Amino acid sequence: MAKHIGQQSIKFEKKISIAATASTVGTKEGEGPLGKYFDVILKDAVDGEASWEKAESKIVKDTLTLAVKKAGLTMDDIDYIFSGDLLNQGTGSAYGIRDLNRPFFGLYGACSTFGESISLGSVTIESGGASKVLVGASSHFCAAEKQFRFPLGLGTQRPLTSTWTVTGDGAAVLSKNGAPPYITGITTGKIVDFGITDANNMGAAMATAAADIILTNLKDFNITPEYYDLIITGDLGYVGKELTIELLKKEGIDISNNYTDCGIEIYDRENQDTHSGGSGCACSAVTFSAYFYNKMKKNELDRILFVPTGALMSSTSVQQGESIPGIAHAVIIENHPKGEL
Amino acid sequence: MAKHIGQQSIKFEKKISIAATASTVGTKEGEGPLGKYFDVILKDAVDGEASWEKAESKIVKDTLTLAVKKAGLTMDDIDYIFSGDLLNQGTGSAYGIRDLNRPFFGLYGACSTFGESISLGSVTIESGGASKVLVGASSHFCAAEKQFRFPLGLGTQRPLTSTWTVTGDGAAVLSKNGAPPYITGITTGKIVDFGITDANNMGAAMATAAADIILTNLKDFNITPEYYDLIITGDLGYVGKELTIELLKKEGIDISNNYTDCGIEIYDRENQDTHSGGSGCACSAVTFSAYFYNKMKKNELDRILFVPTGALMSSTSVQQGESIPGIAHAVIIENHPKGEL
Repeated sequence: MAKHIGQQSIKFEKKISIAATASTVGTKEGEGPLGKYFDVILKDAVDGEASWEKAESKIVKDTLTLAVKKAGLTMDDIDYIFSGDLLNQGTGSAYGIRDLNRPFFGLYGACSTFGESISLGSVTIESGGASKVLVGASSHFCAAEKQFRFPLGLGTQRPLTSTWTVTGDGAAVLSKNGAPPYITGITTGKIVDFGITDANNMGAAMATAAADIILTNLKDFNITPEYYDLIITGDLGYVGKELTIELLKKEGIDISNNYTDCGIEIYDRENQDTHSGGSGCACSAVTFSAYFYNKMKKNELDRILFVPTGALMSSTSVQQGESIPGIAHAVIIENHPKGEL
Repeated sequence: MAKHIGQQSIKFEKKISIAATASTVGTKEGEGPLGKYFDVILKDAVDGEASWEKAESKIVKDTLTLAVKKAGLTMDDIDYIFSGDLLNQGTGSAYGIRDLNRPFFGLYGACSTFGESISLGSVTIESGGASKVLVGASSHFCAAEKQFRFPLGLGTQRPLTSTWTVTGDGAAVLSKNGAPPYITGITTGKIVDFGITDANNMGAAMATAAADIILTNLKDFNITPEYYDLIITGDLGYVGKELTIELLKKEGIDISNNYTDCGIEIYDRENQDTHSGGSGCACSAVTFSAYFYNKMKKNELDRILFVPTGALMSSTSVQQGESIPGIAHAVIIENHPKGEL
């Protein structure tokens, strides 16, 4: 049985295996530094569908299906699907999962959704209620820009603090039995509001949540940053990453030597015009599913803290002058659990 | 440890207590037949806030806080909050929960969200990862109409198949120890699409999902409808209720003698101009939290199947010609578990 640890954490007793992952990305992500790691790179933003939104749902369906296939399973082997996205009312997931005929828990944690999916999927396996679950998260640059900011055709100039929403879906099959890497614990985020009101500076809005959850994870499990080979936030980009390092320094914690952000890894800053980096639910989902999962399978990384980060505003809340609340959900993933936690 | 039962169900080993509930509703709901059961009835639609959306967040915060107080606890006793709503990006919940300083899992199951909250809250307690969780769901008539259909000021005529979105929030404290009623099992819904494209006929869009999950619950636990004193769907209204009864009759199941719908209970059909009945996340959440919970505490009901129902469309998906997918999450709640499941 799991144990509630410290303030916000759960330590799992079962060795919850990440049996397989799958990733689909758009053309831009395919041209980036991680291009060779993705399973599928789309030729264009609509993928044969009539709209960006329908394309996102198709990506969700195809990627979840691929993850199951890569795990050597059929969809009927999956007890539950946990998924979410940025579209209003989670329609990216809903229409994508409609035909998969499996029980579905719809989640919304903004760009932290993949962390939430893994967390609740793991909890459900730990409870004994499921043997195998499918977890995922998606986003689509065009659909997200249109919904949250400006019509793309307007060609609005983007400030240097802005990030680029990743088009894609990352998915994983979690299993109560199987090979490493294992999910050994989670630290679930509170909502943290830094008072940022600029929807083009989400890295800053989320950095406080990231710093808070990393600090809480270290305290709850009574460990230091060196416990991890790498701490990986979701989509803070360059602006948010620096702020996270600074905020933790004030608490006496130095993560500058073993910390990166998926939003920095996924694009080439010099040549891809993505300003502060990547963002969106898919940013952490595809970067983990393709790149970091691969590094763990090859034992190039043994133990990571994966921290997808999210900004919980809507265009309505921003228009009504609300600040942008951040949240982050940390997941401990280990090849060789030392039992030190 | 929980057991996965049949196709889509989990049977809990722990006696997960619903330690307390709380409910807040708008003026219209307060004037309806269940008025005397609600904890708080608002004087108007904004509740002292600057917008309907901000009012919804205030209702969320106040109702969650009240549920904790009614359970004789403080917010610090709560391990996790599970909540969701109808607003884009779940901002009703996010801004409401921002100040509560507890770990938060954001959910989206449309109007089935309260069933999803209870399900995942129970799973987390069962896993050992939490002792006490707070679950809830909210909606707001004005904010929902504006977002999903037409500006209220337009005075658009509503067809007779339409339902009225309940303003309010229903919340419950779940505890690993405590008095009845207990959550003893869940049956989690697949997405079911009946091909309905009329956002003013959501009862029909959700009825197939409701019938499917009731049938699956009976099969998975190998029981008949008579096992329950009452089967209670979320917000199908008159149109959807009749359809659900019919659909189950075709499967040889008669639930007509012990079945009602929260959307029917909450308003007075003759005098409140609500057409097919109530809807929205709050419909099942407040009707359960106020009325049915009360009936169970007084032993007027001993064993129920509570089935919040949801329609997973957005205004974008409807405008793009998509049909409306339905989902329903069933929760078994019992005062005296017979161990027959």
